[in-house]
Amino acid sequence: MPIDILVSEVGPRDGLQSIDSIMPLEAKKSWISAEAAAGVSEIEVGSFVPAKLLPQLADTAEVVAHARTLPGLTVAVLVPNLRGAQAALAAGAHKITIPLSVSETHSLKNVRRTHVQMLEETRAIAALIRSVPAANRPKFEGGLSTAFGCTLEGPIPADRVVELGVALMEAGCDEVGLSDTTGYANPAQVKDLVTRVRAAVGEGAFAGLHLHNTRGLGLANVLAGLEVDVTTFDSSLGGLGGCPFAPGASGNIVTEDLVFLLESMGLRTGIDLSRLLAVRRIVAEAVPGEELYGFTPDAGLPLGFQPATQEVDAA
Amino acid sequence: MPIDILVSEVGPRDGLQSIDSIMPLEAKKSWISAEAAAGVSEIEVGSFVPAKLLPQLADTAEVVAHARTLPGLTVAVLVPNLRGAQAALAAGAHKITIPLSVSETHSLKNVRRTHVQMLEETRAIAALIRSVPAANRPKFEGGLSTAFGCTLEGPIPADRVVELGVALMEAGCDEVGLSDTTGYANPAQVKDLVTRVRAAVGEGAFAGLHLHNTRGLGLANVLAGLEVDVTTFDSSLGGLGGCPFAPGASGNIVTEDLVFLLESMGLRTGIDLSRLLAVRRIVAEAVPGEELYGFTPDAGLPLGFQPATQEVDAA
Repeated sequence: MPIDILVSEVGPRDGLQSIDSIMPLEAKKSWISAEAAAGVSEIEVGSFVPAKLLPQLADTAEVVAHARTLPGLTVAVLVPNLRGAQAALAAGAHKITIPLSVSETHSLKNVRRTHVQMLEETRAIAALIRSVPAANRPKFEGGLSTAFGCTLEGPIPADRVVELGVALMEAGCDEVGLSDTTGYANPAQVKDLVTRVRAAVGEGAFAGLHLHNTRGLGLANVLAGLEVDVTTFDSSLGGLGGCPFAPGASGNIVTEDLVFLLESMGLRTGIDLSRLLAVRRIVAEAVPGEELYGFTPDAGLPLGFQPATQEVDAA
Repeated sequence: MPIDILVSEVGPRDGLQSIDSIMPLEAKKSWISAEAAAGVSEIEVGSFVPAKLLPQLADTAEVVAHARTLPGLTVAVLVPNLRGAQAALAAGAHKITIPLSVSETHSLKNVRRTHVQMLEETRAIAALIRSVPAANRPKFEGGLSTAFGCTLEGPIPADRVVELGVALMEAGCDEVGLSDTTGYANPAQVKDLVTRVRAAVGEGAFAGLHLHNTRGLGLANVLAGLEVDVTTFDSSLGGLGGCPFAPGASGNIVTEDLVFLLESMGLRTGIDLSRLLAVRRIVAEAVPGEELYGFTPDAGLPLGFQPATQEVDAA
């Protein structure tokens, strides 16, 4: 089925890394399977970081192995460095993202590396990925985090974002995305920055938007993105997650509300909203102490609601 | 100071009518005074309905009397019928709104009147208002509620909304607004319906949008409204309120988040966001059992945030 907008679920990575609870491997598998079955076609399932730093994601290789068995699913992972990329390749991830924080202060706090060091790492990863036969080669994305502002540095100049986007492409990324790590973005800024970065990296090299709902503007920022033709948005089921190294910045946009927004506007996500809503139970039961967000799950679907993605039950 | 967008606070009416607590008169006065001092220039302070039906708003005449003493404030009220309009005129309201539910089922449940009866009432109120000398004549708005869908009827045809908007103007309203009473609206629908209704009633007769955040789309719908040149938005401090007669439909958009959205986009509201955020305490203390919503109040303003409305401390 053709889709208009790709909703990329990041909860198993971005959500789980920022909560204290450790979700058991079996629950992660159930979560990912259920979301894929609901029609979610790309899931960031984990991060290849030292287990000491993020014990929540220590089983990422096993999660990738499971996710790869799900037909049609793009299995994405985050890697902070070459070593992580090696593990991601070994596990068989379809897509590898390296985050580069536009705020160097945030980069130093988050991964203890300068921009120069991160770009070196990016080049090394790109070389590694190019050594893989084309048929098995994962896509390599550079994720510009704190692109809309930083809790440590404050406003981030748009020129700096563009500059680092170009640098990531020159270092060998296939595409670059923009992340509002801190929930500072506003719709006018989203339109402006997407337009600038896409102009600089080239039409086909803009990956998408990773937005947070920290100040309630998440879906307004999605709409702004739609209006400048962004077609990929990250989100987290139940809004689980945030950034543990950016104090006060929490809350990925909620997958359920994002899908409701898109479907109600007539944009096909390929996702069955009722089945998606049912996935919350798996997450709630697996990490019972953690708060889940979202308005659509509480309110339910409108009476007579017609999704853009019509149910085609092939099962 | 010139403003770009009028934020019309409806919490003292729409918020208070839908909660069980009764806010004491003195607290209402403090709330309204504090919001006016923060730069909010229009507040719907109450509703002239029988005290038996809404004891929460029984002191509306006294609230209007107080609000009228605040310099520069437009004092708005809701009235369901001629009797309410008489009371509103006697109290000296600057603006009177009669709601007309596009869903007749909702209208019958809410005010026990058909469309024909409500339009008759509207004509009677318009005649009464026209009898007032022009200098003291309040503005008369027709508010099309359940315009984007109804929890009882489901989807509402756009043609019906346009038809009733025209009927309200013919019955003597100065302008008509659109209300998403049930939180069913999506951005594509907002653009479409605003465009249609404005075309039908005339450029200057479109009053604005009253949006709810029931499914998390409230601010995305505001952005959609901005893009078709809507310049007035209702909202409720702390998101207090909803519609007690539309089950499951709760949550006006939050004034604090709305103002943050607008100011961050460079649109002047005339409102000092820091002072606005401080008003929450008054409401929280006056109705301690009631939940307040909003993301910006929790997250705080971004580091280095530059509002469009620069502080001009005339005090």
